[in-house]
Amino acid sequence: MSDLPASVEFHEEGPREGFQMEPRTYPLGDRAALIDALAASGLKQIQVASFVSPRAVPQMADTADLFAAIHKRPGTRYTALWLNDNGFERARACDQVDLDGKVMLYTSEAFAQSNNNCGVREMRDRQLGWIDRYLALGIPFEQAYVMTAFGCNLGGPVPVTAITDLLRWLRDVCAERKIPLPAIYLADTMGWGNPEEIKRRIGAVRELLPEAPIGLHLHDTRGLGGANVYAALQMGVRLFDSSIAGLGGCPFAGHKYGGAAGNICTEDMAFLCAELGIETGLDLDALIEAARLAERIIGRPLTGRVMHSGLPPRP
Amino acid sequence: MSDLPASVEFHEEGPREGFQMEPRTYPLGDRAALIDALAASGLKQIQVASFVSPRAVPQMADTADLFAAIHKRPGTRYTALWLNDNGFERARACDQVDLDGKVMLYTSEAFAQSNNNCGVREMRDRQLGWIDRYLALGIPFEQAYVMTAFGCNLGGPVPVTAITDLLRWLRDVCAERKIPLPAIYLADTMGWGNPEEIKRRIGAVRELLPEAPIGLHLHDTRGLGGANVYAALQMGVRLFDSSIAGLGGCPFAGHKYGGAAGNICTEDMAFLCAELGIETGLDLDALIEAARLAERIIGRPLTGRVMHSGLPPRP
Repeated sequence: MSDLPASVEFHEEGPREGFQMEPRTYPLGDRAALIDALAASGLKQIQVASFVSPRAVPQMADTADLFAAIHKRPGTRYTALWLNDNGFERARACDQVDLDGKVMLYTSEAFAQSNNNCGVREMRDRQLGWIDRYLALGIPFEQAYVMTAFGCNLGGPVPVTAITDLLRWLRDVCAERKIPLPAIYLADTMGWGNPEEIKRRIGAVRELLPEAPIGLHLHDTRGLGGANVYAALQMGVRLFDSSIAGLGGCPFAGHKYGGAAGNICTEDMAFLCAELGIETGLDLDALIEAARLAERIIGRPLTGRVMHSGLPPRP
Repeated sequence: MSDLPASVEFHEEGPREGFQMEPRTYPLGDRAALIDALAASGLKQIQVASFVSPRAVPQMADTADLFAAIHKRPGTRYTALWLNDNGFERARACDQVDLDGKVMLYTSEAFAQSNNNCGVREMRDRQLGWIDRYLALGIPFEQAYVMTAFGCNLGGPVPVTAITDLLRWLRDVCAERKIPLPAIYLADTMGWGNPEEIKRRIGAVRELLPEAPIGLHLHDTRGLGGANVYAALQMGVRLFDSSIAGLGGCPFAGHKYGGAAGNICTEDMAFLCAELGIETGLDLDALIEAARLAERIIGRPLTGRVMHSGLPPRP
């Protein structure tokens, strides 16, 4: 029937996804307090913010100051996102950042062009520079994200071969360098995934790269996030990106990639795992407190559910 | 692996669940327009409103007028809810109501006492009166709802035997009367269900009553609604109650049975089915229009997702 894993790890993306998408910049102290509250729940990895152009994303201009303001907790990694050399150098210059080597592989020509002004193959080859740089600096190469792995609003459906072609290339790259494969994250960037496609694509990755850990970066854009997580759990997937309170969602239609595009909700999915007997290492009460803090900071109802209903009152 | 059904039927509960829970009464014309918009999507059954005490629920005082205002569409049944003799007589007196014989079976002593001032066994025996009345009036006995079938905020966990004991009684009642079994609806009244319990309890019902259709009445109280629907689909379940836009949800904590307690969202779950290749007979664009109308009427963002993101833009 199913092959639920014994344990699952959630990587928190809420602070970066959420505050980056909001039109206004929230006080640094509020953002630092949220990150501290998240760490208190036992999360093993929190993506704090981006090192991106302050002109393009003024909400993330103070990322280095934010890192300085948080109270780092042993057992939690505090990561950052960068998209170019300048961002990476700023991340490296910030002592508090836990650097995790990652690359982004594009499956959609239209999305690659729109984001980077170059094609899928050129974006792929550019990632070689990142991998070699990580290795030269002693940063482990940990994650390969396959973007729009289920479909793309700009380019339409994405065939499974678009994923497996990239992963064959990655396998050869790692073999040449005699390094282990990173975790392969299938990113449902625009909410095209459904449970059967989740299973099918995880199956294809596992068949090609049986030794690679598989992760999912899911957005709940069209309301299938929970069903997709359950399908992935049935396939034994143990790594999920998620956002506290569903942060990153947007209640207004007309967002670039569709309204309500938040990540799957950390505390709701941690509750799902707890109900299924899957270990997460997370304190649900602390997570719910963090979600409520996020809602107070943002100042409008967020999409998380268990933060509003509370846990079932058990004897 | 799974046994997805070829087709699924959604019974719309939004107008009754949603407008009954809101503190204010919305204009009758708005409610009638929403029901007409819902019918235009191809829904086969819409629960329009309740015939309940106007003193207790002033939002439903004009149910007969509402029935008179809607434009009935062939192929759609327009049903009502009643909880006592008086309500039933009012429903019978209203020509536009499509009467469906239904009973409610309680699994939780605490919930039965709280709602009806009597115990589970007395509530069960009272249902005999309803069944015989339906038969005497030529109203088909169609649905038996098993309340809080997954757990109860007032009474705690509900054992599977609490369900099967009631269903054995129901089987004998139907056998004595030489009538077919009604559809058995497991109602997750307070959002305690999880996907594995969904499968387990559906399995138990099916083992006991293999000839009875099985339905689910799910609330997305704790964010597991979509995963629960997918689990039920994997068990071949073909009947679901749902609410347009997730109506019936409440963004404010402190609701009697927890905030955000809406039913599973009709258009999101119809989208799930469409993505899985399961026939629903529903026009998704029309459903999304109805969801947006519901949001305009209620006047704040509702919890449905695909109504905000739109369908994937396919070539």
